Amino acid sequence: MPALDILATDPASQARAGILNTAHGTVRTPAFVPLATKGVVKALEPRDVVELGYDMVLGNTFHLFLDPGHERVRHFGGLHKFMRWDGPIITDSGGFQVFSMGHGTVADEIKGRASQGSDRAGAILSIDESGVRFRSYIDGSEKFLAPETSMEIQAALGSDLALVFDECTPFHVTRDYTARSTERTHRWLARCLDWHAENGPQDQLVYGIVQGGVYEDLRRESTEAVATSAVDGVAIGGSLGETKAQMHEVSAWSTDTLDRVAPGKPRHLLGIGEIDDLIRGVEIGIDHFDCAMPTRIARHGMALVPDPEKRWRFDLTNARWKDADEPIMEDCPCPCCSAGFSRGYLRYLLKAKELTGMRLVTLHNLAFVQRLMTDLREAILAGTLPQTAAALRSGAAPGLSRTVA
Amino acid sequence: MPALDILATDPASQARAGILNTAHGTVRTPAFVPLATKGVVKALEPRDVVELGYDMVLGNTFHLFLDPGHERVRHFGGLHKFMRWDGPIITDSGGFQVFSMGHGTVADEIKGRASQGSDRAGAILSIDESGVRFRSYIDGSEKFLAPETSMEIQAALGSDLALVFDECTPFHVTRDYTARSTERTHRWLARCLDWHAENGPQDQLVYGIVQGGVYEDLRRESTEAVATSAVDGVAIGGSLGETKAQMHEVSAWSTDTLDRVAPGKPRHLLGIGEIDDLIRGVEIGIDHFDCAMPTRIARHGMALVPDPEKRWRFDLTNARWKDADEPIMEDCPCPCCSAGFSRGYLRYLLKAKELTGMRLVTLHNLAFVQRLMTDLREAILAGTLPQTAAALRSGAAPGLSRTVA
Repeated sequence: MPALDILATDPASQARAGILNTAHGTVRTPAFVPLATKGVVKALEPRDVVELGYDMVLGNTFHLFLDPGHERVRHFGGLHKFMRWDGPIITDSGGFQVFSMGHGTVADEIKGRASQGSDRAGAILSIDESGVRFRSYIDGSEKFLAPETSMEIQAALGSDLALVFDECTPFHVTRDYTARSTERTHRWLARCLDWHAENGPQDQLVYGIVQGGVYEDLRRESTEAVATSAVDGVAIGGSLGETKAQMHEVSAWSTDTLDRVAPGKPRHLLGIGEIDDLIRGVEIGIDHFDCAMPTRIARHGMALVPDPEKRWRFDLTNARWKDADEPIMEDCPCPCCSAGFSRGYLRYLLKAKELTGMRLVTLHNLAFVQRLMTDLREAILAGTLPQTAAALRSGAAPGLSRTVA
Repeated sequence: MPALDILATDPASQARAGILNTAHGTVRTPAFVPLATKGVVKALEPRDVVELGYDMVLGNTFHLFLDPGHERVRHFGGLHKFMRWDGPIITDSGGFQVFSMGHGTVADEIKGRASQGSDRAGAILSIDESGVRFRSYIDGSEKFLAPETSMEIQAALGSDLALVFDECTPFHVTRDYTARSTERTHRWLARCLDWHAENGPQDQLVYGIVQGGVYEDLRRESTEAVATSAVDGVAIGGSLGETKAQMHEVSAWSTDTLDRVAPGKPRHLLGIGEIDDLIRGVEIGIDHFDCAMPTRIARHGMALVPDPEKRWRFDLTNARWKDADEPIMEDCPCPCCSAGFSRGYLRYLLKAKELTGMRLVTLHNLAFVQRLMTDLREAILAGTLPQTAAALRSGAAPGLSRTVA
């Protein structure tokens, strides 16, 4: 059975809608995958995530390796049983996180922002061909991550979809460094696949990770090398450039190559999930996305709304909402807005650091993104993606405006 | 219509089961009332509180006065609309909180523990017959609370059941101080009732507060003075002694007096809610209780279990639970245990400061207390309270053992 059943494609773009088949059930694609980095979608229970309509969550190898440790998770019967999530789970490989200790934050680096130094107590001790030695940010102990150890951890976690261990190439490096780093990522891919073929769970899908920085030839070569290996799917990682336009272009080099060399393999875009990026990502043929954005900004009081001029968000903690009676979004069916919580009340809760405030905005934001993805998927199936994408881009409320399509 | 319809009494004790009638619906008594001190039951949504089976919550005049301010709550249509709770709400008067700034923590004082100094930035500026002048712990501004202002704030909040403003007499004071303080509380009661008769919402019930320290004659006099005034119900407040035995005895002086002078008026026991205190409180004829215990200890990782030897609780953050597969409580129907979350996972979440961990233990603890209260109420109605109380005291799991009755 192929990992991905493609049910429909959009004639005007590279978009596809399908079903991803995993050991713990199916995922309707294109899909957004909420983060359960540390084995929990922050502020929510699994039943909330199910009720929001999500099929899959993403756990993180690096964080779960350090705490509570993969052996402990194995003792509990794997990550599904540990966190009580019965559906599909992706695990990120830990490459991004471990290299972020060496480059300030990789998030800054790969998005081309100036490095602000590490925000972690941990630190890289050495990087070489064998792997990465570093200090745990939890207890300062020395740890080692390598292709084989990452796969071993992901086997213990028992995720449905494992990502190979890559060297996450930063932005502010030379073309030569990028080329050599990408080659190492390819050698590490082979080691990951070897380890998995020998020892990995047979029903665990493995995705390779494309690197290559912002260089078209390197990106296309990397995509082809990864896609034509024994991987079940392809994840696009690393630095995608300084601007959204560049990020969309760099990502499209990969999906364009994939359309040619491995059209049936599923594609994941790593760490990207702003509203306009999701719309564009679907158009260039991405099948699933993960991003901290909807949940992280919620805890800081930022709520998603259909307002393209303001990056689809506004700050609930602003004093202007003190007396605001209206919900985050009129007619929104999410658990927060439909219960009638006002912006004024949410502002009050957030300023008072009440957990319920963070939870309510998290529910709203994830509901918003899920409705967006559902709109895009249904439009692909109905053959009306261009109209739906245009409407969403111009500020149509997702999930409220399907008659637009 | 009387505030309380008594449906059954226990022949072997002073216990009664009934229905409290309020402007926003009925409360099945005896009842535990979860705290929504700042207009939110911490970590929960109103729908959670409904699903747990609670009829009423308690908001706090002092905290809501300082933030977001009663005028702002009034702007939103009152506390029910502000916090999206459609059921009955009690508001505490603020007396306890404002006096706690002057006596270290009143919680320490009234329970006879040594004062540890104030844990608030706020401070009392003056106390006299007119009221209390103090500094806000929110912004340092000068504020004034008095009988009339407390009732005015509670009118703006629109609670179903207002408590009069009292001087909360601390423990470490002389009998003479206690007597004079109690007399002031009675004069303030009259002022509260006058203000409410003139200006208060007609459908808002008003409860007086009994003081009198640990002196039987003062307690009985205070109870009679409060109960024979125009109040709809009676709350027992202030210092109840150093030990549980003393607390039960002091409370019983009041309910014994009430049985004689005002048997039909509902009784609230302020700030008391440990498991054995709830059982004993029901037996001496208390109709409803509030206490921070179940929700506060949950956020610190303490879970309620049927273990009388250990105050019905254990510390989930203890290292011994690292690998523990079992739920907080076997066969517990609460949203946490029934979903299969293990002690090991909960420990991990709590140690990692994950909001979901605090939420799950809050759900468990409040479910535990609600089942306890339901068991006690059903036993009174069935005429089997002695057996049920004995079983619960000896460690029967509430809600799982109703066949005991």
